[in-house]
Amino acid sequence: MSAGQGHEGGPIGVALFGAGNVGGGVVEALDRGGERYAAVVGRPLELRGALVRDASTPRHGLGSECLTTDPDALLADPAVRIVVELMGGEDPAADYIARALRSGRHVVTANKEVIAKQGRDLLAIAADHGVRLLYEASVGGGIPIISPLSRDLLANEITGVTAIINGTTNYMLTGMASEGADYADILADAQRLGYAEPDPTADVEGIDAAYKLAILCGLAFHVAVRPDDIVRQGITTLTANDLRHADALGYAIKLLANGRLVDGELIASVQPTLIARSEPLAKVDGVLNAVQVEGDLVGRVVLEGPGAGPGPTASAVLADVLDLARDIVAGRPPVETPPLRRVRVRPPGEHRARRYLRMTVADRPGVLGEIGYALGAHGVSIASVIQVEADEDARTAEIVLTTHIAAGAELEAALDAISASDVVEEICNVIAMAG
Amino acid sequence: MSAGQGHEGGPIGVALFGAGNVGGGVVEALDRGGERYAAVVGRPLELRGALVRDASTPRHGLGSECLTTDPDALLADPAVRIVVELMGGEDPAADYIARALRSGRHVVTANKEVIAKQGRDLLAIAADHGVRLLYEASVGGGIPIISPLSRDLLANEITGVTAIINGTTNYMLTGMASEGADYADILADAQRLGYAEPDPTADVEGIDAAYKLAILCGLAFHVAVRPDDIVRQGITTLTANDLRHADALGYAIKLLANGRLVDGELIASVQPTLIARSEPLAKVDGVLNAVQVEGDLVGRVVLEGPGAGPGPTASAVLADVLDLARDIVAGRPPVETPPLRRVRVRPPGEHRARRYLRMTVADRPGVLGEIGYALGAHGVSIASVIQVEADEDARTAEIVLTTHIAAGAELEAALDAISASDVVEEICNVIAMAG
Repeated sequence: MSAGQGHEGGPIGVALFGAGNVGGGVVEALDRGGERYAAVVGRPLELRGALVRDASTPRHGLGSECLTTDPDALLADPAVRIVVELMGGEDPAADYIARALRSGRHVVTANKEVIAKQGRDLLAIAADHGVRLLYEASVGGGIPIISPLSRDLLANEITGVTAIINGTTNYMLTGMASEGADYADILADAQRLGYAEPDPTADVEGIDAAYKLAILCGLAFHVAVRPDDIVRQGITTLTANDLRHADALGYAIKLLANGRLVDGELIASVQPTLIARSEPLAKVDGVLNAVQVEGDLVGRVVLEGPGAGPGPTASAVLADVLDLARDIVAGRPPVETPPLRRVRVRPPGEHRARRYLRMTVADRPGVLGEIGYALGAHGVSIASVIQVEADEDARTAEIVLTTHIAAGAELEAALDAISASDVVEEICNVIAMAG
Repeated sequence: MSAGQGHEGGPIGVALFGAGNVGGGVVEALDRGGERYAAVVGRPLELRGALVRDASTPRHGLGSECLTTDPDALLADPAVRIVVELMGGEDPAADYIARALRSGRHVVTANKEVIAKQGRDLLAIAADHGVRLLYEASVGGGIPIISPLSRDLLANEITGVTAIINGTTNYMLTGMASEGADYADILADAQRLGYAEPDPTADVEGIDAAYKLAILCGLAFHVAVRPDDIVRQGITTLTANDLRHADALGYAIKLLANGRLVDGELIASVQPTLIARSEPLAKVDGVLNAVQVEGDLVGRVVLEGPGAGPGPTASAVLADVLDLARDIVAGRPPVETPPLRRVRVRPPGEHRARRYLRMTVADRPGVLGEIGYALGAHGVSIASVIQVEADEDARTAEIVLTTHIAAGAELEAALDAISASDVVEEICNVIAMAG
């Protein structure tokens, strides 16, 4: 099968790999929007079948004759031109995507893990076989990201992307800030509402956001970054007190995914970050996602919307499907996209930022001076001291301070030094500050 | 000259009509990004000349040999393939655009007035001559709007657009809300900062926003609406007190441009609107612009960014230029866009909404009951009474109340009735409430 040729005038066959929650959204949208999509494309889309784990479970909108547990049965159908992968997880999804591409099918996926870890290789397979692999739905749900970067902002040199791309943690941080809720309580709350998984690790440790940031860096800068190379810090050590201190300083705390290309090197991090309350991203609350793009001409634009759910994901998946279908009808060959470049990814020691520090110290005169001296000896200077609260029983005090800009390595050496002294009992939290 | 054929491998000629502030931004960006644009397009872009009012005034980046006061001199140059119109105003810009299209040139414009008033006719001229007329920069400055609607959100049925698309008034309303500033003071402030014109009418009366809303309705719903058919209310009667009352209720007041297609009819308005503080648009402050798009699959997405200025406008203008240049190089014929349909535009009497009312009434017992009775007789019921402040000297009181949903005609009849009574001294303000 050649990617450029359709069965003249006939429907364009679509196969689903995975027919769960999001798959159901795609089936329903195809059903409801069918006539409109046929008008947009010039030929109707036809759902040819769905790969499922258990073909005996009935699915809404899919007759049992459409269901199969064998991907090759769907790939054997010559009418299938586009495969939509919605299984999630790396294995076996990555293998199935590769098989679909090798069989000459275009593939649309919402699978952030596969694209973040194997996207570069899969895109090469697609190019080798004259087909396309599209993945708008893998980051930011239904938020338009692909075409703003590839069309409307194309005249800009993109210098940075900063994003809130994990709804679970944003819901939690919003609750901790607005209600003063504790981490454990708000996590339980999010789990009860279905916003957090029973095992919340991937969300609260920033793993999910790191996958998505890796994909965003590819889209914005055309560079490949391994998720493991992204500096990553979760939200598990944050307390309602940190959010209160930040608020007093005029900041919100958000789990920000940030990527920037500086002198040909990539700086990429997912970490809780103090961000001035007047900033657009500081106002993105609850499960909403948002992606801020910085360009040399436009300054900053923010794209905001629902980052998850069957409807928004179907919106993004079907945008890709319609794009492919129009190319098939027009006989347009796949757009040549330059392969993603590998660049040096700066290690955390080279990340320069202001930081917020919360620590427990001995409650005696002169302590602040000693800390300032020890930090200064390693190139870290104190910008402000926010709060000193003594616990008279324990004879300790809690200090919250902010530093001027310093490299991660300088800060680490400084913190090692004060931790080794008899002044500091515990360094409770170190949080980056934006800007 | 045919639109589909370029001089093989040679530069693609661009002519500027207008070389003021924004034109300077385009010249600078073409200069700075030239190499990158050549790589994106496959051939370099070449600035062939600029139409100016006075060719003896030197312009940065444009030699005097490039300047002319005669549009036909630029159109006589066969190397010019794309005309960028940045003159502003309807006359003579619309005529010049038409001449450029008729001569077989693609046209890119940032001219909201021309597109809002004559876009439908000019698009027809472009279609007749096999060229394209693009106008991303005419609404929302550098905010990506065209491609999200035409690509990433294409699977959605777009049900509504709501936008803050006038930076001047948003700056003023933000200042009135945050500082309690009076209208006259904040206007003077905006004029001093260059955000408002010496004659601020087009901004503060919502005329500028109505042009942009007419364009947005074309992009989102493919319908043509005359700016004069858009229900329009300015911000000139708003007081800091209105913003304070709204705040107490949990609302911000924004000048919202709203369009929705209901049962094949268009509802379109530009008016100050109470909007719940938790809404994303309520948090868009200062000179920022934002466009909220509602779709049946995605729910709501918000696109936010700088709505004006040479950089953002150049970003949007050059996105259109690059799009055209790539089509020229690929020999792609212009995309067939369906002509804008005329639909019935609902008159204000048919706009159904909750409203906020502020009025001065006689300060005597039973007044509120009489007002409630009079409103109710015309189908308008009171949802809440926010504030009653008596002025004992004048023997009047100020009442602020909100109504349940009612049609504009019902409200008008009700207000006529209470105005005619001896109860109400003055109806000071009627403001729509969103949702």
